[in-house]
Amino acid sequence: MEKPYLEHIKYPSDISDFTQKELSELCEEIREKLINVVSRNGGHLASNLGTVELTVALEKVFSSKNDSIVWDVGHQCYTHKLLTGRANVFDTIRTEGGISGFPKREESEYDAFNAGHSSTSISAAYGIARAKAMLDKEGYTVAVIGDGALTGGMAYEGLNNAGRFKKNFIVVLNDNKMSISRNVGSIAKYLKRVRFKSGYLKTKARFERIFSKIPFAGGAVVRGVRKIKAKVRYSLYQTVLFEDMGFHYYGPIDGHNITELAEVFESVKNIKGPVLVHVITKKGKGYTLAENKPNVYHGISAFDIETGEPLSGKTDFSFIFGNKLCELAEKNKKICAITAAMESGTGLSRFATEFKTRFFDTGIAEEHAVTFAGGLASEGALPFFAVYSTFIQRGIDQIIHDVAMQNLHVVFAIDRAGLVGEDGETHQGVFDVALLNPIPNLTIYSPTYFEELEYIMEISAAEGNGAVAIRYPRGTEPYKPDDFVCGKKHYALYGSSKCDTLIITYGKIFANACMARKILSEKNIDVCVMKLTRIKPVPEQALNDAVGFKNIFFFEEGMLTGGIGEHFLAEAVKRGYNGKFIINAIDNIYVRHAKVDSLFEKLGLSADEMAETVLKNREDK
Amino acid sequence: MEKPYLEHIKYPSDISDFTQKELSELCEEIREKLINVVSRNGGHLASNLGTVELTVALEKVFSSKNDSIVWDVGHQCYTHKLLTGRANVFDTIRTEGGISGFPKREESEYDAFNAGHSSTSISAAYGIARAKAMLDKEGYTVAVIGDGALTGGMAYEGLNNAGRFKKNFIVVLNDNKMSISRNVGSIAKYLKRVRFKSGYLKTKARFERIFSKIPFAGGAVVRGVRKIKAKVRYSLYQTVLFEDMGFHYYGPIDGHNITELAEVFESVKNIKGPVLVHVITKKGKGYTLAENKPNVYHGISAFDIETGEPLSGKTDFSFIFGNKLCELAEKNKKICAITAAMESGTGLSRFATEFKTRFFDTGIAEEHAVTFAGGLASEGALPFFAVYSTFIQRGIDQIIHDVAMQNLHVVFAIDRAGLVGEDGETHQGVFDVALLNPIPNLTIYSPTYFEELEYIMEISAAEGNGAVAIRYPRGTEPYKPDDFVCGKKHYALYGSSKCDTLIITYGKIFANACMARKILSEKNIDVCVMKLTRIKPVPEQALNDAVGFKNIFFFEEGMLTGGIGEHFLAEAVKRGYNGKFIINAIDNIYVRHAKVDSLFEKLGLSADEMAETVLKNREDK
Repeated sequence: MEKPYLEHIKYPSDISDFTQKELSELCEEIREKLINVVSRNGGHLASNLGTVELTVALEKVFSSKNDSIVWDVGHQCYTHKLLTGRANVFDTIRTEGGISGFPKREESEYDAFNAGHSSTSISAAYGIARAKAMLDKEGYTVAVIGDGALTGGMAYEGLNNAGRFKKNFIVVLNDNKMSISRNVGSIAKYLKRVRFKSGYLKTKARFERIFSKIPFAGGAVVRGVRKIKAKVRYSLYQTVLFEDMGFHYYGPIDGHNITELAEVFESVKNIKGPVLVHVITKKGKGYTLAENKPNVYHGISAFDIETGEPLSGKTDFSFIFGNKLCELAEKNKKICAITAAMESGTGLSRFATEFKTRFFDTGIAEEHAVTFAGGLASEGALPFFAVYSTFIQRGIDQIIHDVAMQNLHVVFAIDRAGLVGEDGETHQGVFDVALLNPIPNLTIYSPTYFEELEYIMEISAAEGNGAVAIRYPRGTEPYKPDDFVCGKKHYALYGSSKCDTLIITYGKIFANACMARKILSEKNIDVCVMKLTRIKPVPEQALNDAVGFKNIFFFEEGMLTGGIGEHFLAEAVKRGYNGKFIINAIDNIYVRHAKVDSLFEKLGLSADEMAETVLKNREDK
Repeated sequence: MEKPYLEHIKYPSDISDFTQKELSELCEEIREKLINVVSRNGGHLASNLGTVELTVALEKVFSSKNDSIVWDVGHQCYTHKLLTGRANVFDTIRTEGGISGFPKREESEYDAFNAGHSSTSISAAYGIARAKAMLDKEGYTVAVIGDGALTGGMAYEGLNNAGRFKKNFIVVLNDNKMSISRNVGSIAKYLKRVRFKSGYLKTKARFERIFSKIPFAGGAVVRGVRKIKAKVRYSLYQTVLFEDMGFHYYGPIDGHNITELAEVFESVKNIKGPVLVHVITKKGKGYTLAENKPNVYHGISAFDIETGEPLSGKTDFSFIFGNKLCELAEKNKKICAITAAMESGTGLSRFATEFKTRFFDTGIAEEHAVTFAGGLASEGALPFFAVYSTFIQRGIDQIIHDVAMQNLHVVFAIDRAGLVGEDGETHQGVFDVALLNPIPNLTIYSPTYFEELEYIMEISAAEGNGAVAIRYPRGTEPYKPDDFVCGKKHYALYGSSKCDTLIITYGKIFANACMARKILSEKNIDVCVMKLTRIKPVPEQALNDAVGFKNIFFFEEGMLTGGIGEHFLAEAVKRGYNGKFIINAIDNIYVRHAKVDSLFEKLGLSADEMAETVLKNREDK
């Protein structure tokens, strides 16, 4: 094949007879492509740079359409996309109309299962393997999971369930010592021990290979050999944990040596039963800046390749949250902070340094984190659990059962609430409100500006509160009108009391509503804007004020069904409201990747669209 | 102390100087009490009979108010209640106004943390332990978790997080080889191996005790001894799994030998760091019928002590579901069934026998089960995941992310939907609708009668469907009016088209609505009843029919906020409805334990209350 290779590769099978030299060159080409495109489009860099050779080896060995590779989280799937017919559109990644930054079944028959959230791959892959067995289908099934994702309970549930399967099932543990932050917990420590004990990878891998060539059919001799293997392995690597879970263990293997990887993958195809292949990779491999700071280059916005500097970068809500929490913690010794492997993303780095004994990183374990917070609160501590909106979906049962039902004082700091843009449907923070809204004993705030976030953190930290959720957007502050006042009554009304049309909204798009009001005012149409800061319970007086209007337009950056708009309407009707009430929210669709402003436009939530909706639908006196 | 003991015991410390003989007699007295009360009130029998000695030993050793014992699931807390000041009200357990069948912080300062769902204890207890450390509080913290609950991912997340704690933290593994059904998966197999290898419990326990008397302070000699201990333990018991998780391991210990248990509990108090004490118990111990069929006597309704026969017992929805699924599976080879350790409770026992290779018990692992179902569906199988309403709360993120977002054809058979009665707030199936309602690509049905359930299962199994949830009540069929017809259009209207008042409802309380209609008719008030069978999306024609009425009363056996009532109203208003619209649902409270009929009455959902609401609020023409 001629160079550059990527433009010629349409299927994984195209690389099946590549020489070692060609494979190396291919990896180099892939790395260059990754750095170039991600520096322009933003995306997941370090995780993809770390898995180039691993992916190439996997695609080389599991090249059939019948084989299924399930990528955990999916943020390391770029090389896979490049090798499965998407090299020519790769520079559209994460842009509107372009390919997604995550595996998508609708994009390619080589994408076996969609992902975005962590620790799902073993469950999904095991389902795929069982279905193949049940329906007599051909093909190998491989789950690729990072050591970070292995801290999630689902991964363990999957291992526990798959451990007794009688047919071939392969889990590749991509061990780079990291979650997004440095990996924590016993499993991380255990893996470190395994890596350490093994010392000289190469010799060990050879040693393994000798054994792996012994066929696994029955017979006393073979069983004897297997026993020896197990013993040797234990003494060498202490790998009993995975073997206790029912898995054959192979590793650790150098994750940047394609030949060795491919050999091991070929040999584990013969095993009847579940296999775990432990691969050691370097996150950020091949781009020095990313190798040194893999957490910074995990998920990143567009940046300058030479300097590594982000092309944009302003103070964001996470930063404000983290600083304010330090200030509160200084005064109140009960305050502590929890993160599920998102220390830096949630703005908690300063807190982690300054309040070491009051900072808890649970690993990627949102369920545990919520109940852990409940435990802390039940004994008198005041935990703030900072978590992205999309990931708190994992902890809904625990918020109900372990916090709110016991009326415990826990503060959920829900970052990235609302649309997040380029990460697409798995990451949009559009479900948190509808999922939290039915929960009794829970108060929900949705600030728009930094000073509001700070004020609400203060009142949420005050004594006597039960469970509180504070949801705030990704990124920087939106447009702030001149007449904005940080209100203490949890809602505010902007505009003349004489007008008959009211826009109600909350969160980030309050900014859009204010701009819509300006647009309308320029057309001599007077509307009021009501800003809800506390959305559950909706302030009584906000309802009383609203029912005086003739036209109400409720705009919501979240799901329509079960959202605040529908609840507000029901409360208004209870108070005798019978005017026009139009709700514009996300109506029963998943929101794909695109820039947030473009999504606002499409969903009818931009200033222009809001003004348009009012113009079209309001009824004059 | 005089016999009977229980009436004199107010605090755990009251038993601290009991002799071995007195402790035995106490256990006998407790068992008698348990059997008597549970045979009358219903409740969890086998799990409580199995943990009498374990609890007595725990209360004896951890008797201080500063100590915290966290019971996983909580269905084994009866002995704990008897020993912590609630013996005199124990016969009110699970009855209205009486004590709860689960730990409740509001009931006693000895109830450290509420429970009801599985696998939360390690997380909660670890939070409590960290809060004590952070706030310089005294007291030991103990989590008691069953081997069944250990299959839940949260337990692992908790172990992983707690494994590196530097202070005392005790996890007691109550190993009875069971979830509710027989325990499954690798962990179950692993524990079996540990039990088997240990052989002669007693000698081993003594052996352990010798070691445990060596203090755990620093110094090379002690470290040496600990190394030997670890080796001995490994060769004897293969306990490396828990040690790999960072826990000191002690066991297995005979869970019915109080002296031995108490000795071990005393000695592990001295360990600086997390400890796992592995205790072997017999579920149902002391009541032969329960020992032989521990799953039947796990959670049970009132029964006859002599014969063990339930005092009531009719065909229920779970049974109908299980039979119908067998019928469908006979015709369609793609159909398979998943349970999360609830084979018998969800009616799947027959399926498990007849379709062995198409039946999957995941262990108590709802998250994994949902994603596993997604994997199966992605490869062409058609999984039915049968799960209780309250437990599907655990899988909401996975339904969104791993099933509905990929538009996979998975059927969620949601049993015990609606009020369940005596198990109380942790088990009421009142959140599923509000949590599922915002999810795009999901259809939700809520049948009232057996034939409806069967019909909906048929259409849900048909090709071309995405994700479907079918939610049906606990227990037997409710009242069925003579004019009931199993409709194919997913809603039905009962009553004359001339009347101006409409009751809308779905699920079990359609029966109450029909009786309310009768009551009103006897007062010469004519109302129509609309039955929704498909509640998401609400049938278009149902909305069109409804807006013709002047008074609409929507009754919902679920949460008001985010429920179908609010959504129906929003859709009606969109269609120009401006009549009266009153929603009666569960308004921002957790529903405590009581008989379901009594709860209907209290919540305004009984026939009488419905009629009353209509009478009070309807406006005449």
